[in-house]
Amino acid sequence: MIIFERLVVLGVGLMGGSLALAAKKAGVVGTVVGWSRKESTLQTALVNGVIDHAEADLATALKGADCVVVATPTILAETIMIQALELLPSTVAVTDVASVKGNIADALTAHFGEVPANAVLGHPIAGSEQSGVGAARDDLYQNHRVILINDTAMTPKTDAVLLSKVSRLWQSTGAEVFEMSVSEHDHVLALTSHLPHLLAYALVAQLSNHNESVNVFNFAAGGLRDFTRIASSDPRMWREILLANKTQLSSSIDDFEQWLAQLRVMLDSNDGDALEMVFNDVKHSRDNFVAELAARSKK
Amino acid sequence: MIIFERLVVLGVGLMGGSLALAAKKAGVVGTVVGWSRKESTLQTALVNGVIDHAEADLATALKGADCVVVATPTILAETIMIQALELLPSTVAVTDVASVKGNIADALTAHFGEVPANAVLGHPIAGSEQSGVGAARDDLYQNHRVILINDTAMTPKTDAVLLSKVSRLWQSTGAEVFEMSVSEHDHVLALTSHLPHLLAYALVAQLSNHNESVNVFNFAAGGLRDFTRIASSDPRMWREILLANKTQLSSSIDDFEQWLAQLRVMLDSNDGDALEMVFNDVKHSRDNFVAELAARSKK
Repeated sequence: MIIFERLVVLGVGLMGGSLALAAKKAGVVGTVVGWSRKESTLQTALVNGVIDHAEADLATALKGADCVVVATPTILAETIMIQALELLPSTVAVTDVASVKGNIADALTAHFGEVPANAVLGHPIAGSEQSGVGAARDDLYQNHRVILINDTAMTPKTDAVLLSKVSRLWQSTGAEVFEMSVSEHDHVLALTSHLPHLLAYALVAQLSNHNESVNVFNFAAGGLRDFTRIASSDPRMWREILLANKTQLSSSIDDFEQWLAQLRVMLDSNDGDALEMVFNDVKHSRDNFVAELAARSKK
Repeated sequence: MIIFERLVVLGVGLMGGSLALAAKKAGVVGTVVGWSRKESTLQTALVNGVIDHAEADLATALKGADCVVVATPTILAETIMIQALELLPSTVAVTDVASVKGNIADALTAHFGEVPANAVLGHPIAGSEQSGVGAARDDLYQNHRVILINDTAMTPKTDAVLLSKVSRLWQSTGAEVFEMSVSEHDHVLALTSHLPHLLAYALVAQLSNHNESVNVFNFAAGGLRDFTRIASSDPRMWREILLANKTQLSSSIDDFEQWLAQLRVMLDSNDGDALEMVFNDVKHSRDNFVAELAARSKK
């Protein structure tokens, strides 16, 4: 059943392209129009069947849309979203896929005096080490989670009909949708993603700039490889994400430093029992998390 | 060619058992004698062909040895090593596999007034998520690295003949042997293993004790799973390792906090270029490390 007659995807990379493919496969969209700053991206998207029509001009691309997905890099998302909201009537859903929501809500508020009711802020928690339209696939969001912003503190509230339609669009891709406030979202993501990235970056920087006669990496194994995997993420993309969420990230760093300090006190005072108790709790939480993650992906 | 006629393995778990199996397969040991506090471990070791003889009494087990490997849990290693060195003549190599070397050197010095020349301190950088004699296998050390202590600051120096024989024993298992001082070893391991474990423990503790209405793990994915893998390690074992290396670990925490603070300054001052430069360097180092690790395992 068609949810949106004319879905316009602004930025046809891994995220936008995968949403288009999945929605087309599920039969919930009529026509998919793609817009990109790069002509070559649009051509690949057309050839691969990711989009039905390509438009190089933003205003033309938006004509007749009943849903617009902003899927550009984080740094462009604010501007493109503002342009789309300015050009379209308030009956059209304008949603996005950016990793941080507070900076976008702030930019919209600065420009419009509020977050318009048809702006359905979203964030699918999915990705891949690859990027670009060539990596787009129709099952990227299968069994993944998507957060949509429904913030009771915002005036006006997000349009309930549009929110529900965007939610169904995501469900059609096989994703599970959760609603949160802007600050809840940014706080949860700071803890589960942005802080771990920063810690991995800091550790690898420390190890590479180390003053030993030996290359310490020569004596590291699989444990360090996995711990630092996220430090091989795209530097430009992560610069943007971490800066976009710097307020929440900063408070997560404060909390982390307190936890580290607490463990250090246990070490300094030789309190093995206290350390072991924390490590046991941690192992329990982490083992549960991994079991649930595995169960989710097997659904 | 036989390197040791009578190899005595004290503690026949994953590490000691795998060394015994590999040395037997390589044909570099005559008889392998196993000792354990647990009768059932000895029986399994015998049945699985890990050892040729089982001895429940330590003094009896040591009789006639020309090499003794202490492979007990870290917390017992100091005591067992002292007992073996007391019972054996100085012509017999007494080596170990514990993850920290400073605490053992200190315990030997406290007891003997020095680290005896026949004490060949060692640390194979290998492991498995499994443990116990049932998990022992002859290829555990294949293409892994083993650090043997050859510390010019120690008096007396390690017996060169015994050091060379223990080195050849490890090489026969397919491992590559490197020599380091005690403090070099403990510093390198603090950076590449002990500090990452502590950071993963601190982060998971922070996330599990978090005061949000939502379970933050519900919105985490593969990145966090890999980052926290080492936090599922055995709590008792890691309590012992971290306490054994607490001096070096503490100085690594200091350095880490400085790196984290540096990144935070870049965030606070919106210095995206500086962040991206660090992230680029980090990605380069980490990608190199992973490529070398993969090449090592394909040898």
